Amino acid sequence: MSDPDLTLYELAGADCDLRFSPHCWKIRMALAHKGLAATLVPWRFADKDTIAFSGQGLVPVLVHGADTVSDSWRIALYLEDRFSTRPSLFRGTDAMPVTRFVNSWADTTLLLMVARVILVDVYNCLDANDRRYFRSSREKYFGMTLEAVASDQPARRTDLQKALLPLRSMLKKQEFIGGAAPTYADYCVFGMFMWAHICSAIDILEPDDPIAVWRERLFDAFGGLARSAPTVHRPAG
Amino acid sequence: MSDPDLTLYELAGADCDLRFSPHCWKIRMALAHKGLAATLVPWRFADKDTIAFSGQGLVPVLVHGADTVSDSWRIALYLEDRFSTRPSLFRGTDAMPVTRFVNSWADTTLLLMVARVILVDVYNCLDANDRRYFRSSREKYFGMTLEAVASDQPARRTDLQKALLPLRSMLKKQEFIGGAAPTYADYCVFGMFMWAHICSAIDILEPDDPIAVWRERLFDAFGGLARSAPTVHRPAG
Repeated sequence: MSDPDLTLYELAGADCDLRFSPHCWKIRMALAHKGLAATLVPWRFADKDTIAFSGQGLVPVLVHGADTVSDSWRIALYLEDRFSTRPSLFRGTDAMPVTRFVNSWADTTLLLMVARVILVDVYNCLDANDRRYFRSSREKYFGMTLEAVASDQPARRTDLQKALLPLRSMLKKQEFIGGAAPTYADYCVFGMFMWAHICSAIDILEPDDPIAVWRERLFDAFGGLARSAPTVHRPAG
Repeated sequence: MSDPDLTLYELAGADCDLRFSPHCWKIRMALAHKGLAATLVPWRFADKDTIAFSGQGLVPVLVHGADTVSDSWRIALYLEDRFSTRPSLFRGTDAMPVTRFVNSWADTTLLLMVARVILVDVYNCLDANDRRYFRSSREKYFGMTLEAVASDQPARRTDLQKALLPLRSMLKKQEFIGGAAPTYADYCVFGMFMWAHICSAIDILEPDDPIAVWRERLFDAFGGLARSAPTVHRPAG
């Protein structure tokens, strides 16, 4: 059941049920944390016109009544502010600035290292129009072909395991980045794992990694919201 | 002027004025944040007996009256608890868990990347007994000689710049990891920069890096506490 005045535009694959954007998953989890359900509108890179009203060209875009907010970090702050009587996304405002560091780590180091493992799988999820845009923009960013970015998988996976050290080390001391319960800091990082989980048949974690236990807890959160998401290897019914 | 019942054991070099341990610097900054001054006791790796009373063999060790606390994270929590009426190290307890992630990032990713630039300089700061211990323990950890770890400096510096992306990206949006003012999250990371600053004549940052501006602010904090520390290229008068 959706809250009638909340709409979330989120990236979809060629299969419209595949919603794999890491940044959109941050907001899906944030909405659930606040006990909110938005109408989910599938969007593709080629649909720039559909979200032109937001004044920019990327998802997630949240529409709440007369308000339009883009950029996942700004959406999280908006939800925290407008739904302040519901459970805090940050365990109170004091943790907001330092959570921004975690978000920054997820969006730079982690996103890059995960990309180098799954980039071709992401490409294969996209529909034909989006594939052209994605290949061109990402190859420009990396300065090489998608296939070259994701080549030498054993080395890429080793690099990813190394990049995950801070998370692994911390999870030996506490259950979530937010402490005893998850906060937006966890959702920022979990979004990157959902991206891989939905697009790729490869598990980016080794089974005995303490991070896998944390990921299981987040798969199960909010009635299994993340676990029930269709993936490339388990399409919707 | 030291608080008479606070003593901090901290690592010293062959030149006893060189106090370069990144973990000890976290606590120096934390003490200053709380408006506390400890008696600083120089310690060397070879002096295991001196701190045997702490039940372990590493510094920092803080002694406060009848209490002995080791491990920088536990010392920070102790200071926060015992001096709770003084400025909070975390901007309130809500930010503690997520600050632990920042500490973990500093202690794993950042420490390793900085080590690969300055490890031979650190070695050269140590006195003869400590050099033997340091070479043996670090070469075992890295599986290669210290000189091999720190070889190919241009590549090591490039790796470090990449590892610093999350911090650099965040500092474009806010002044400190803690927000408008520094917290223990900042000191965790700054400790790694003090380590390099004291041991090495090389500046690990490019002059136009936004991180350098943040570092300047922390050099200046608490009356220039960090800036006035003797370094290998500027010994105590």
